[in-house]
Amino acid sequence: MKNTLGNNVSITIFGESHGNALGAVLDGIAPGIEVDESFIAHQLDLRRPVGKISTPRKETDEFEILSGVFEGKTTGTPICIVIKNKDKKSEMYESIKDIARPSHADYTAFCKYNGFADYRGGGHFSGRVTAGIVAAGAIAISALRKKGILIGTHIAKCASIEDAEFSDYKKDIENLNNKIFATLDDEKAEEIKAIIKKAASCYDSVGGVLETAVIGLPVGVGEPWFDSVEGMLSHALFSIPAVKGVEFGAGFAIADMMGSKANDSFYAENGQIYTETNNNGGINGGITNGMPVIFRTAIKPTPSISLPQKTVNFKSKLNIIESIIGRHDPCIVHRARVVVDSITAIVLCDLLATKFGTDWLSK
Amino acid sequence: MKNTLGNNVSITIFGESHGNALGAVLDGIAPGIEVDESFIAHQLDLRRPVGKISTPRKETDEFEILSGVFEGKTTGTPICIVIKNKDKKSEMYESIKDIARPSHADYTAFCKYNGFADYRGGGHFSGRVTAGIVAAGAIAISALRKKGILIGTHIAKCASIEDAEFSDYKKDIENLNNKIFATLDDEKAEEIKAIIKKAASCYDSVGGVLETAVIGLPVGVGEPWFDSVEGMLSHALFSIPAVKGVEFGAGFAIADMMGSKANDSFYAENGQIYTETNNNGGINGGITNGMPVIFRTAIKPTPSISLPQKTVNFKSKLNIIESIIGRHDPCIVHRARVVVDSITAIVLCDLLATKFGTDWLSK
Amino acid sequence: MKNTLGNNVSITIFGESHGNALGAVLDGIAPGIEVDESFIAHQLDLRRPVGKISTPRKETDEFEILSGVFEGKTTGTPICIVIKNKDKKSEMYESIKDIARPSHADYTAFCKYNGFADYRGGGHFSGRVTAGIVAAGAIAISALRKKGILIGTHIAKCASIEDAEFSDYKKDIENLNNKIFATLDDEKAEEIKAIIKKAASCYDSVGGVLETAVIGLPVGVGEPWFDSVEGMLSHALFSIPAVKGVEFGAGFAIADMMGSKANDSFYAENGQIYTETNNNGGINGGITNGMPVIFRTAIKPTPSISLPQKTVNFKSKLNIIESIIGRHDPCIVHRARVVVDSITAIVLCDLLATKFGTDWLSK
Amino acid sequence: MKNTLGNNVSITIFGESHGNALGAVLDGIAPGIEVDESFIAHQLDLRRPVGKISTPRKETDEFEILSGVFEGKTTGTPICIVIKNKDKKSEMYESIKDIARPSHADYTAFCKYNGFADYRGGGHFSGRVTAGIVAAGAIAISALRKKGILIGTHIAKCASIEDAEFSDYKKDIENLNNKIFATLDDEKAEEIKAIIKKAASCYDSVGGVLETAVIGLPVGVGEPWFDSVEGMLSHALFSIPAVKGVEFGAGFAIADMMGSKANDSFYAENGQIYTETNNNGGINGGITNGMPVIFRTAIKPTPSISLPQKTVNFKSKLNIIESIIGRHDPCIVHRARVVVDSITAIVLCDLLATKFGTDWLSK
Repeated sequence: MKNTLGNNVSITIFGESHGNALGAVLDGIAPGIEVDESFIAHQLDLRRPVGKISTPRKETDEFEILSGVFEGKTTGTPICIVIKNKDKKSEMYESIKDIARPSHADYTAFCKYNGFADYRGGGHFSGRVTAGIVAAGAIAISALRKKGILIGTHIAKCASIEDAEFSDYKKDIENLNNKIFATLDDEKAEEIKAIIKKAASCYDSVGGVLETAVIGLPVGVGEPWFDSVEGMLSHALFSIPAVKGVEFGAGFAIADMMGSKANDSFYAENGQIYTETNNNGGINGGITNGMPVIFRTAIKPTPSISLPQKTVNFKSKLNIIESIIGRHDPCIVHRARVVVDSITAIVLCDLLATKFGTDWLSK
Repeated sequence: MKNTLGNNVSITIFGESHGNALGAVLDGIAPGIEVDESFIAHQLDLRRPVGKISTPRKETDEFEILSGVFEGKTTGTPICIVIKNKDKKSEMYESIKDIARPSHADYTAFCKYNGFADYRGGGHFSGRVTAGIVAAGAIAISALRKKGILIGTHIAKCASIEDAEFSDYKKDIENLNNKIFATLDDEKAEEIKAIIKKAASCYDSVGGVLETAVIGLPVGVGEPWFDSVEGMLSHALFSIPAVKGVEFGAGFAIADMMGSKANDSFYAENGQIYTETNNNGGINGGITNGMPVIFRTAIKPTPSISLPQKTVNFKSKLNIIESIIGRHDPCIVHRARVVVDSITAIVLCDLLATKFGTDWLSK
Repeated sequence: MKNTLGNNVSITIFGESHGNALGAVLDGIAPGIEVDESFIAHQLDLRRPVGKISTPRKETDEFEILSGVFEGKTTGTPICIVIKNKDKKSEMYESIKDIARPSHADYTAFCKYNGFADYRGGGHFSGRVTAGIVAAGAIAISALRKKGILIGTHIAKCASIEDAEFSDYKKDIENLNNKIFATLDDEKAEEIKAIIKKAASCYDSVGGVLETAVIGLPVGVGEPWFDSVEGMLSHALFSIPAVKGVEFGAGFAIADMMGSKANDSFYAENGQIYTETNNNGGINGGITNGMPVIFRTAIKPTPSISLPQKTVNFKSKLNIIESIIGRHDPCIVHRARVVVDSITAIVLCDLLATKFGTDWLSK
Repeated sequence: MKNTLGNNVSITIFGESHGNALGAVLDGIAPGIEVDESFIAHQLDLRRPVGKISTPRKETDEFEILSGVFEGKTTGTPICIVIKNKDKKSEMYESIKDIARPSHADYTAFCKYNGFADYRGGGHFSGRVTAGIVAAGAIAISALRKKGILIGTHIAKCASIEDAEFSDYKKDIENLNNKIFATLDDEKAEEIKAIIKKAASCYDSVGGVLETAVIGLPVGVGEPWFDSVEGMLSHALFSIPAVKGVEFGAGFAIADMMGSKANDSFYAENGQIYTETNNNGGINGGITNGMPVIFRTAIKPTPSISLPQKTVNFKSKLNIIESIIGRHDPCIVHRARVVVDSITAIVLCDLLATKFGTDWLSK
């Protein structure tokens, strides 16, 4: 399948940037979970452009739940959430419809869809389509929270600025989830915003790294070999536009360690088992070990920049130079944060439903 | 599903390190593809321990094709390949069956499988189970080669030693595929072997990074959003034991670039479209763009080391200190190489079958 | 997955009888297929109640295509179609929400969804949810027709009245597709309508058998063992409410034949291969053989009848006698016809995309 | 997927009639279930030819469990079971390899697999491949029995002879499972055997109908819409060679009933809910209602008969007359019984694992 992800809990996404609407169908979520529409709106707000460091496109992202929720609770049947497109300025895309914006999907979508793709604003490849994931993910996040499973993501790095590290996971996650611009260190937030503004002023863009922690997961979650926690999460994370890397625990840095340092020693305390370090990111053999699940996601700089770039007209096969007009972000790292949280929550609901059955989340 | 991966071409793996046998069922491969048993044997050789830098366990890895091949060619029906276990020394695992070897799956498997997992030699979590992937992958690799699609992986880094970079993809890939110890620079191979031996002499282990290039893929392959090339490959790669990170193109380094540098400018030459750089690793929007598909896989140091380590008995919940006896590798990076190639080939056959139909590979 | 069906072409359905809306997401359909909204409307008309032999609930079934169609053609990305509920009279369901209407899903839905299901008008189990299948199926039917693949279904039997048999498949199918009440013999249609009206006048209901023919399918379609044509179609057909039996070719009658009679002799004519009889319904070994694919679907009498029936209150566990008020059909066989055609078309698009690739339908 | 069936519990089959071996991988079965090899052997015996009413091919069907079982219990990892082919007389198939045996898959397999299929003895399409399903199914049947879920199938009809009906489900099922020739009425068994022998003596064959009852299933099992109990079971049942019809409860006969007769009235007794009749076969809305799940499967007469038949050489496209030599059964209804039980058990384990989680079966 292409636009459906998941086994027992699944999400199906649809929509284009400048079409009528976009949205998602979330299926398999246990019946009886409270659906808090204001929390969905809050999560959509986190994804929306922020002041001067984001695109001037103004979408209010008003969503409508079409199905699967009754008297404020999930029914166990598919939840379809729709967000209408309103602030569309499609005409400006007409003139560049045969131009391959560098690092965008214009050319590959043209090839894959034989020229029939909706090219306006990136069509189905627009980051805007993640709004459906965020709306659906909000329900998954709420469900997990009720079971004591918390997800938090911070901007670990943006351009050259590095954020602080997690110190107290529970407190840090709760703080992060209350922030629009999610850093652990507030001063770093200001530095990062400054660097984004500077990039914008140069008609350029910056990327970064998001780091996510999940706490409260039971031991023994994950369906190896292939539906390991890492396999399932990475599959989902790499579906988010602009993600070019995913690593768990120490990630690529583990390649530089000796085994004696990389290995996470186990110890028992009050009948519970822990590890002293967490280079494996809470996962051994694709299965949770009770430590926080930690992963990082590399986000590339927004490909849409106003600087002139060399590229091609893929119909005429002519080389051209193009400045991308349109409304775009100098950085999407801070907006991608909630998308990472959302898809993570959906994947975890899926793995938990697989292990514990369809109804566990609401038990 | 847990031990089945893939949509139109799928692999199902089975087996334990010290059980009767292990193997794989490869399904969906087009009929009429030549099956070269000597190539399968060659690929299994690449996975097998190498001289002094590997485990002394000696498995000849004799495989038997039980089905799906007739008169030397694939029939289009499932290919089951079985490798019997012979050099089993299971008794030594009896005494440590309740001990959580650090960074191994003993504890998590105990939890997930409620104490019923075969603990001998890691059971179903043993790296040995990858032999089934390699045998099946050999058929996929051969099929792709006939269509001009080549896959090559080198040890980009092991401990502190970095290999050279790809210069001429075609030539480099062909060279790599003829090497047992896959570096682009032969001198680096000797340095790496020396560092592995040194780690072994200290009863320790080392990790590394594998870099893979795929050339010859048509433009337009990949099924976004969720069955993107990155999503599908990462799902498969993270299923390989010891993998802790996967990145495409510039990967995590892209987070440090400005958009103007990260963007891959397109240009046309003789009616073909190329990019000047390849920071996106040959993939835009989850779809191949005709440039080499490039990714890196972080391999952790072998967790089995003979140095004493702190850990627990997960039944008694007692803290203990344990040296892992058994036959293990001081490094598995060089052996993991062929596993990466194999699972990559299977995933690509799947994506190609999805796009072009069940029979394309043999057309 | 629960509400998603299909591998390469899939449908995801959502919605409840008395919720905001219902609909479907059709994914994987080749790009470039013309979408004729008037044909979708026509198909929805076929599903809608007909005069005095149907429910008085009046839904105009106005649909909106939210995504996946651009400039009148499919883009290759997911097509979400939404139909709003308008003529809802939900209050009448409040009083019977704990009553198990016999042969309805009230009790089982109550158990499965732990009491959280939307009970109004059958909720997600309402036959009304098939409107999403019909809207999506209309696109699949159009796509197949362009490739010369035609689907036609007639009311082979309703109560005791039997329709004529197919004589000229092509002509018959075209005639059927122009009829609101699909019989091959117009006189039989009148007899059947009379029997339905009579049942209605007795506050009772009748069932029937639908027979479907598909012509124009290439030889060699079907993915045995498990994704055989029969396996895939039956899976889909049994998902339609009220279906209690599916048979291919001679079906259950084949059990009474000797092999020498049941076997379909092959013969060649002008280089084409045919069978003399078609007791296998155009399928051998789960694969199409070029003859018409023939199957029959048993539809039970509408369970909603106004006659008093013995049943229970599943909360109080008290035995009661209940007459079902509400707006219901004395027969749904004629309305189910277009649902059968629609889901058949979607399954066939899936199997064809599997065999020939993502783009074949629009080639 | 083609040769893999199931979501949370899955079976992957492989093998050809005259290849090295055939078998199955059963994945997702809960850890800790006792595996009784003598019961597997017993079930394989039920599938094996019986005296004079079956093929003279003598396969001992010795199976080997390669993986997934440790110390006599399931480990939770994939169970691969292999059965070697021994009594192969392949040479006799060489001469007829281009002949389309009527109602067999020779021609369609030739088309689908582009001429590369193993044609010997039907290759992958041989009924012999069901031995893998039976071996795997034996484990599923045992697991269900521990939970009080019993499956029994009788020959409801063979040629013109009809068996008695179920009277006491529990007792009847236990009796059936101890019989090699499964009728409820022993006299009918003799009549049926006589009719099979008569058909054999005329070089002809007969078919029949199998009826299956499942008792002990919890209320609320089934994942509508698409993974309904009927959808999942029919998908699996139609994968068995020779099955041409599947019906639940009253099945096709329900089409002749009025709603007032077809509806199954509910009643409560001692706090339990039952239905007075069971025309819906224990399923409402695709979900179990606690009554026995009842279905019937139509089995066509063995297509292999020795009478001369008209057919074609599909390479030369010449019309010919052919008598099928080879070793074949005049009836396979009695042998198909255990295949139906086995695949039913696997599907039910899958649906139960979906609802209750991975470990429920061994709890």
